[in-house]
Amino acid sequence: MATGGGDTALMLRALKLAEKGRGTTSPNPMVGALVTKSGRIIAEDYHKRPGDLHAEALTLLKAGGKAKGATLYVTLEPCCHKDKRTPPCAAAIITAGIKKVFIAMKDPNPKVSGKGIEELKRHGIEVVVGVLAERAARLNEAYVKYITTGLPFVTLKVAMTLDGKIATPEGRSKWITGEEARRAVHRMRSDADALLTAIGTVRADNPSLTARIRSGRNPKRVIIDPGLETPLDFNVCCVPPETILVTRRAGGEGGPPIPAREEKKRQLREKGVSLIEYEGDRVDLGWLMRVLGEREVSSVLIEGGSSLNASALQDGIVDKVVFFVAPKIIGGRDSLPAVGGTAFRQLEEAYMIHAMKVKRAGQDLIIEGYVGCRRAL
Amino acid sequence: MATGGGDTALMLRALKLAEKGRGTTSPNPMVGALVTKSGRIIAEDYHKRPGDLHAEALTLLKAGGKAKGATLYVTLEPCCHKDKRTPPCAAAIITAGIKKVFIAMKDPNPKVSGKGIEELKRHGIEVVVGVLAERAARLNEAYVKYITTGLPFVTLKVAMTLDGKIATPEGRSKWITGEEARRAVHRMRSDADALLTAIGTVRADNPSLTARIRSGRNPKRVIIDPGLETPLDFNVCCVPPETILVTRRAGGEGGPPIPAREEKKRQLREKGVSLIEYEGDRVDLGWLMRVLGEREVSSVLIEGGSSLNASALQDGIVDKVVFFVAPKIIGGRDSLPAVGGTAFRQLEEAYMIHAMKVKRAGQDLIIEGYVGCRRAL
Repeated sequence: MATGGGDTALMLRALKLAEKGRGTTSPNPMVGALVTKSGRIIAEDYHKRPGDLHAEALTLLKAGGKAKGATLYVTLEPCCHKDKRTPPCAAAIITAGIKKVFIAMKDPNPKVSGKGIEELKRHGIEVVVGVLAERAARLNEAYVKYITTGLPFVTLKVAMTLDGKIATPEGRSKWITGEEARRAVHRMRSDADALLTAIGTVRADNPSLTARIRSGRNPKRVIIDPGLETPLDFNVCCVPPETILVTRRAGGEGGPPIPAREEKKRQLREKGVSLIEYEGDRVDLGWLMRVLGEREVSSVLIEGGSSLNASALQDGIVDKVVFFVAPKIIGGRDSLPAVGGTAFRQLEEAYMIHAMKVKRAGQDLIIEGYVGCRRAL
Repeated sequence: MATGGGDTALMLRALKLAEKGRGTTSPNPMVGALVTKSGRIIAEDYHKRPGDLHAEALTLLKAGGKAKGATLYVTLEPCCHKDKRTPPCAAAIITAGIKKVFIAMKDPNPKVSGKGIEELKRHGIEVVVGVLAERAARLNEAYVKYITTGLPFVTLKVAMTLDGKIATPEGRSKWITGEEARRAVHRMRSDADALLTAIGTVRADNPSLTARIRSGRNPKRVIIDPGLETPLDFNVCCVPPETILVTRRAGGEGGPPIPAREEKKRQLREKGVSLIEYEGDRVDLGWLMRVLGEREVSSVLIEGGSSLNASALQDGIVDKVVFFVAPKIIGGRDSLPAVGGTAFRQLEEAYMIHAMKVKRAGQDLIIEGYVGCRRAL
């Protein structure tokens, strides 16, 4: 196939290949690669899942002997470390006789972070870094955060009316947004390692919180349930995948008394539900993200109510917000707002949303952006 | 000038000419016209203000003798009635010897409504109606509603955070949106015949509610003030333009006792403030729109708080909503929502927003659309 375009066009193609791995590579990054020679693409591939060969290795395998003297485009710096299931890609590139390598971005993984590039250069390979770097970083935003901090990348999803309501005063929220928006939510679920919600949302609708799209992957369900109130016969306890209840260690208000609580825990465990217990009155979501990070959860999607949304912002865990906005107005001072809580009282202390983008999903809008620090306007 | 394009392109040009009259033609419609001959535009113009010549008349005047055998493009059906300050345009077109007329839309004015077209046809002029009709109707949406119903076209403007808040619990709303959005609001004010707000908004900020843009025209200020609480030294009583207070006839709770009220009325009138008095506990905004319509107010811009916004929707007076959305989240169950009130409790009864469009205004978004009936989703 003719390459049909310059280095940027070829890297864009590699990024699109990488994107095909969305939802299956975690905690690995999505990576795409292609090899060109004499103006033709001779091989291309992408990383599919942890344990499988990396994109560069797959592509070189396809190219075979033709890789000698060819040019490689890869969306992330090739790895050079050996403490993993697959062989290092830098060595494979050198062995294959590749002459020049275009890399979209350095691998932020401290085990790589420039060492792969150095190794290629040491072997006389010409290396160009930074072609479509920003786009590559956005593609792997969850990986970048997780590999550099050990914390999951957190996306707060809200489905609301144009006037900022997520439910009627009675808690009814079915259906604010339309089918296409709901499908987009299922895709987001499939892309996330875990879905975080709270007992109120579970009790309101008995949702299964699964990714109901073709070849969707169900995220772990993490439910804030201080008093262990999740009914045993609810979907989250009965249908896959794994459910983790985040609960107050001592039991406490709203929950069953201690002996009953121990019995509930036993019953939940019997159903395959696991528990994360926290000390104190309320769960510190920053702490919870650290715990989830230690369990290799590299991305979390929050689908909660007014209170959880507010807590997530207050605890500073939200990286990205995705607001689905329906062309409807319900009004009402008592309707539930997208973000509740009591703490954010001043405009000067508003959370700023950066790089705000708008898309359409059927009749609805999707407004997304990244959360900055609280700062003066 | 060469016409450079087909009939649609020429009508688009006429519509852009018409648009230049925005903010000054009311209660007349905005109209643009141009005359072409042998593939060249020989004259073009637009309607500027009530009492001035209409777009067609101005254009024919410019074209002079060359109009004979030429083609006219006009964004609204030429008038044919004589009970106004300017001569009927249909007659002028016939006299000028125009051969063919393209008209974007029929004039919904019951005094015209097809009669202008008939007259042209009766005189052997070829007439094509409906070129860019929808766009022409949107351009004059206020005129179309006013001329057919006698009621002003009502736009509800909201400036809110991404999470649907218009103010902190203490009522602070300065500044949610950025400069460009605020400039857009001043343009909207300049385009409206009247601005409707409520005493709460006036008391919170002592705003002047004027159109602070170059060659802006200040709309009448109409303030719902049941108890005549507007302070005499506030901007709305001291700086032009006209202010109308909409107040409860009997005085009542929150307002001064009757003799004091009569004195306040006298003082207000002395300052040039006029009053519209209503009977009963609350003002019926439908009734108020009829009263304003009778006073030749053809368009109203609502810039109120949560309660007025809710009342306007409940009373069914809102034609269009324009939401300015800032890339900020303030949260808070007690922050003031875009639309308050108590009545809209069910999602099935949501107000549907049609033809929703999104634009950017600096860092902010502008989401606008038209209000449908309350109906099931």
